[in-house]
Amino acid sequence: MDIAALREKNPEHWMKAAAIRALTLDAVAAANSGHSGMPMGMADVATVLFEKHLKFDASAPKWPDRDRFILSAGHGSMLIYSLLHLCGDAQVTLDQIKNFRQMGALTAGHPENFLLDAVETTTGPLGQGIANAVGFAMAEEIQRAQYGRKLVDHYTYAIVGDGCLMEGISQEAIGLAGRHSLGHLVVLWDNNNITIDGSVELSDRTNQVQRFRASGWHVQEIDGHDPEAIDAAIEAAKKAKKPSMIACKTHIALGHAAQDTSKGHGALTDADQMKAAKEAYGWSYGPFEVPADIKSQWEAIGARGAADRAAWEERFAEASKQKQDRFNRAYALDVPKKLSAVVKALKKQISEEKPSVATRKSSEMALAVINPIMPETVGGSADLTGSNNTKTEDLGVFDTDNRRGRYVYWGIREHGMAAAMNGMALHGGIRPYSGTFFCFTDYARPAMRLAALMKIPTVFVMTHDSIGVGEDGPTHQPVEHLAICRATPNTYVFRPADTVETAEAWEVAISSKETPSVMALTRQNLPTLRTEHKLKNMSAQGAYVLAEAENKRQVILIATGSEVSIAMDAKAKLEAEGIGTRVVSMPCMELFAEQDEAYRRRVLPAGAVRVGVEAAVRQGWDQWLLGERARPGKSDFVGMDRFGASAPAGELYEKFGITASNVAEKAKALLS
Amino acid sequence: MDIAALREKNPEHWMKAAAIRALTLDAVAAANSGHSGMPMGMADVATVLFEKHLKFDASAPKWPDRDRFILSAGHGSMLIYSLLHLCGDAQVTLDQIKNFRQMGALTAGHPENFLLDAVETTTGPLGQGIANAVGFAMAEEIQRAQYGRKLVDHYTYAIVGDGCLMEGISQEAIGLAGRHSLGHLVVLWDNNNITIDGSVELSDRTNQVQRFRASGWHVQEIDGHDPEAIDAAIEAAKKAKKPSMIACKTHIALGHAAQDTSKGHGALTDADQMKAAKEAYGWSYGPFEVPADIKSQWEAIGARGAADRAAWEERFAEASKQKQDRFNRAYALDVPKKLSAVVKALKKQISEEKPSVATRKSSEMALAVINPIMPETVGGSADLTGSNNTKTEDLGVFDTDNRRGRYVYWGIREHGMAAAMNGMALHGGIRPYSGTFFCFTDYARPAMRLAALMKIPTVFVMTHDSIGVGEDGPTHQPVEHLAICRATPNTYVFRPADTVETAEAWEVAISSKETPSVMALTRQNLPTLRTEHKLKNMSAQGAYVLAEAENKRQVILIATGSEVSIAMDAKAKLEAEGIGTRVVSMPCMELFAEQDEAYRRRVLPAGAVRVGVEAAVRQGWDQWLLGERARPGKSDFVGMDRFGASAPAGELYEKFGITASNVAEKAKALLS
Repeated sequence: MDIAALREKNPEHWMKAAAIRALTLDAVAAANSGHSGMPMGMADVATVLFEKHLKFDASAPKWPDRDRFILSAGHGSMLIYSLLHLCGDAQVTLDQIKNFRQMGALTAGHPENFLLDAVETTTGPLGQGIANAVGFAMAEEIQRAQYGRKLVDHYTYAIVGDGCLMEGISQEAIGLAGRHSLGHLVVLWDNNNITIDGSVELSDRTNQVQRFRASGWHVQEIDGHDPEAIDAAIEAAKKAKKPSMIACKTHIALGHAAQDTSKGHGALTDADQMKAAKEAYGWSYGPFEVPADIKSQWEAIGARGAADRAAWEERFAEASKQKQDRFNRAYALDVPKKLSAVVKALKKQISEEKPSVATRKSSEMALAVINPIMPETVGGSADLTGSNNTKTEDLGVFDTDNRRGRYVYWGIREHGMAAAMNGMALHGGIRPYSGTFFCFTDYARPAMRLAALMKIPTVFVMTHDSIGVGEDGPTHQPVEHLAICRATPNTYVFRPADTVETAEAWEVAISSKETPSVMALTRQNLPTLRTEHKLKNMSAQGAYVLAEAENKRQVILIATGSEVSIAMDAKAKLEAEGIGTRVVSMPCMELFAEQDEAYRRRVLPAGAVRVGVEAAVRQGWDQWLLGERARPGKSDFVGMDRFGASAPAGELYEKFGITASNVAEKAKALLS
Repeated sequence: MDIAALREKNPEHWMKAAAIRALTLDAVAAANSGHSGMPMGMADVATVLFEKHLKFDASAPKWPDRDRFILSAGHGSMLIYSLLHLCGDAQVTLDQIKNFRQMGALTAGHPENFLLDAVETTTGPLGQGIANAVGFAMAEEIQRAQYGRKLVDHYTYAIVGDGCLMEGISQEAIGLAGRHSLGHLVVLWDNNNITIDGSVELSDRTNQVQRFRASGWHVQEIDGHDPEAIDAAIEAAKKAKKPSMIACKTHIALGHAAQDTSKGHGALTDADQMKAAKEAYGWSYGPFEVPADIKSQWEAIGARGAADRAAWEERFAEASKQKQDRFNRAYALDVPKKLSAVVKALKKQISEEKPSVATRKSSEMALAVINPIMPETVGGSADLTGSNNTKTEDLGVFDTDNRRGRYVYWGIREHGMAAAMNGMALHGGIRPYSGTFFCFTDYARPAMRLAALMKIPTVFVMTHDSIGVGEDGPTHQPVEHLAICRATPNTYVFRPADTVETAEAWEVAISSKETPSVMALTRQNLPTLRTEHKLKNMSAQGAYVLAEAENKRQVILIATGSEVSIAMDAKAKLEAEGIGTRVVSMPCMELFAEQDEAYRRRVLPAGAVRVGVEAAVRQGWDQWLLGERARPGKSDFVGMDRFGASAPAGELYEKFGITASNVAEKAKALLS
């Protein structure tokens, strides 16, 4: 690479980009860890994007109509930190740059949305960013249709690396974006031909240009160090009616001794090599030093969008009060005042009508009252619409000719769906929920974890939640998935027992601001157990006494979901023998754990023997069966200790001993 | 579709294929559940494949040099059951067909490798089969190079659906197969344009032909109901030097009223419609009835490979004793006699040299003694070779010009890697192990679960197993992943504390025949704790007393991996205060749970207070802290209750309180 020629050809551009490269080298050296090469390779692309195209105002990183910038190759975090610092972002001070990757710094090893306002999404696990970006772009399309172009009209830009494109999730994202002709999505591929193990050639020979074109993308190939080419390509990408991919041929660690090598991917900390690189750049300043003229050019870039923002604010002020309120409420994640009333009305109706339905159907009933009053919801399914019951009548289908549609046919893409939902939630103004089979939590796992880490209230509707699946067999029967979701911090795992609990769970989930929810729902019909209407959301306490002992209390049965009715039947058997039995329904362990000890003691007092009942592995249950005032040796569990099998659901419950008789026997054995 | 014309043109073929269609309709109707349309659509392709190409002998489904047939679209299980029954497979009797999806039947809802010998892999979770197939084809290449073409020379055929191709894992598989020019891999795409939600168009417009070509595949497009075209395409595919994809244009539920509709995907049970379909087929027989002439034609197909097999057996008998023994040992999953000795020698050396190394490095040391004596191992990494330490010197790199290479650069494809490893293990003759960061267990999850369900001993080398990752931050720091792996049935989760335990864990993992292993290994250096050499594999018991109390025993500290040395430091502090403290190292909870109660009691006797120490969530620990003779209120846990953070590892341990001081304080608090 002829650095001198690059400098000479575009001297102003060069020095702006060099500032990114120098800050990256300095910060990584100070931290003695991190990834130098990617920001050094993509500095030119990022500089042109920020200088000429990205609609943003560094003083207002949360302005709703900004363009979104996503660094899918999140290890190159110094790229975004450098850009933000140079543009004058208030959070990313020079001290933050100097404290890159240190305790308490906002400049974490990978960009974290919960640390910096201007970081749109947490990236690092590869491929997530590009799939998030699809969700951002879908959210923009939907809201542009809902609010009009005057209020919503922006682009989503994502920088992706070779790693992002090798991850399978990228194919799901590419397919979705192509299918929906997401014209406001621009992907900038850092085509540097280097991965950690060596050249890309070691593990892949895919022609990415052909691959994107096969899914209906607009594709360009450019020299990623030529500012004019970058500018022209982004300009063309914005005009394209399709999602656009720009293959930017770059040199990782440009100008450094490690250029074009896998060593360049990591932390470049050798002092002499740093010095040589800076000399090549014509960068004669000290560590972390950015000369005032270059800094002020960058700050002008950071202020470039201020007028746009002011104009937008004027337009927003001119919008109807109703539109403003709806917009503000959706972005604040506030629920409409009516929500509580419609949920209560549904609960009342159900407690009277006592239907016997699957909780996936109950979920549809809840959504049928929620969706009409919450236009910010967007639903969908990974090709299981009729099974997940996620589509309510009023939604309309999102499509190229119906951008107002609020239902997405995600296709057989659980992972891409989950990550795109996260993108919608992160974009703002939308509450996404979508479904698949609970067993395929496995496919969506990386994005589900990120929802929890990023503190966004994505709702994962996971139906067919146990051996109740029946004939489809063990590949489709979750046994460990409740434990998996419960082990994940900041996640509400709901397993409601009937329609009333399902409505209550939805009320919590759809009101959440910082916690994602997993709705574990049955395939099979369940009786209505909450036949006495209560205004209070009992499920919001996580667990509660569903049925008190009639005889003197000797047994407490704790159950969730489809096993609560089994516990109720067991209670009837025990009471018939004079054994007083309380049934505790526990739709959400996390919420119960959040209650104060006094409440927990009221629900789970000392004394009685305890049996937990859940058609799943025991892991996670011992806190309630062995802890919380339990007596040693006086508790048991009825559930699954192996994978399921293929047979009708009722027979499987018998085979695995998840029956009222077995629960009653276990309780009696503990009493003897 | 003009059924009459099809019948007329190839009457013999037609009736053979009609037998599959009729059996499918009958079995699904009897089960009142299942998927009729896929077998009905792909019956022609499957018939030609079995009749003219697939090298197999129905009387010997495990013959090592058979071609492999993988039904990636596993919901169409009646296709494979029909084929096996018709060909005379001894397990798939007519009774089994009649008992499709019933309790105890070998004909489960989805094909299960552990139920039927002729089912090469469990499928159902979409996309797994095509990625397994890549592993099968790699295994064949490697063994062909190792044993020669006389003993190993077969093809892998996979039938995949639209769902398989929408799942991201398919892209990882396609990329791998293309990169490695797996010429013995033939993918037959059931191009029926239908998914559960409707036409493929609803969710995807990807040009699959272009997509496969972009990754270097040989691609053909044919009418999937034209036997001559099918035959010619498979013939051409076999000759191609590249992996081959045949796009078979088919009609789902061919000839049924539900043909070409999403309804056709599911269970077609309407009696009148079944009757009409059979009439259209010219199939005038009763339910489950296959006329003798058609059955005997199929049985001839089933016997077609017998001569090939006999010839192979002759060639095998002529091979050297050494080659035969090695082949037989590898396929039997027996370990070489020397294994025990080399592991013991390493343990002895380590206990004397007492190195301070990361357990990922310890793992490399163990592999360095295992790989040279076990040529059946194949290692690899998802682009983290230098971090996972999975590459030992002797392996050589698997590549198009080095099929003997036993190390695979998988690229950034954790999911495809895990599924392809499963494929290698299922193929037989290979013990696969490969690595990524433990956090990215999330990406590999669906395949890790299937390894456990399928009872295959795949080894997942998961390094960087805690906040010890340091600066990379919470996206790269596992906290719930130990719980996730432990929640999964039939999985050994090893978290060794030093090099000796790592070697012991490897000995168990590499000897396992039916259980996959997860090796959770540190990034950071750990001291050698097992400084007294023991011949016995202590880790094989799951947990053991690492250090006995010196003063009167009042405290038991239970720890795993990197936290065992913290527990040892805490013990030193407590003993200094006269508080006798036992340290129990627990490298594998599952193995400890398998021990008898007497042993468990010896390790965890009643009386002492207990503190568990693990830099992860508590879930899964309560069985040891609250159960197993623990005293109520007399145990505690030091670990993580939230996501990690970005900072140097040592500071994170301090921040989250995972320190010897804190452990000692907690123990003392329990004693007071």
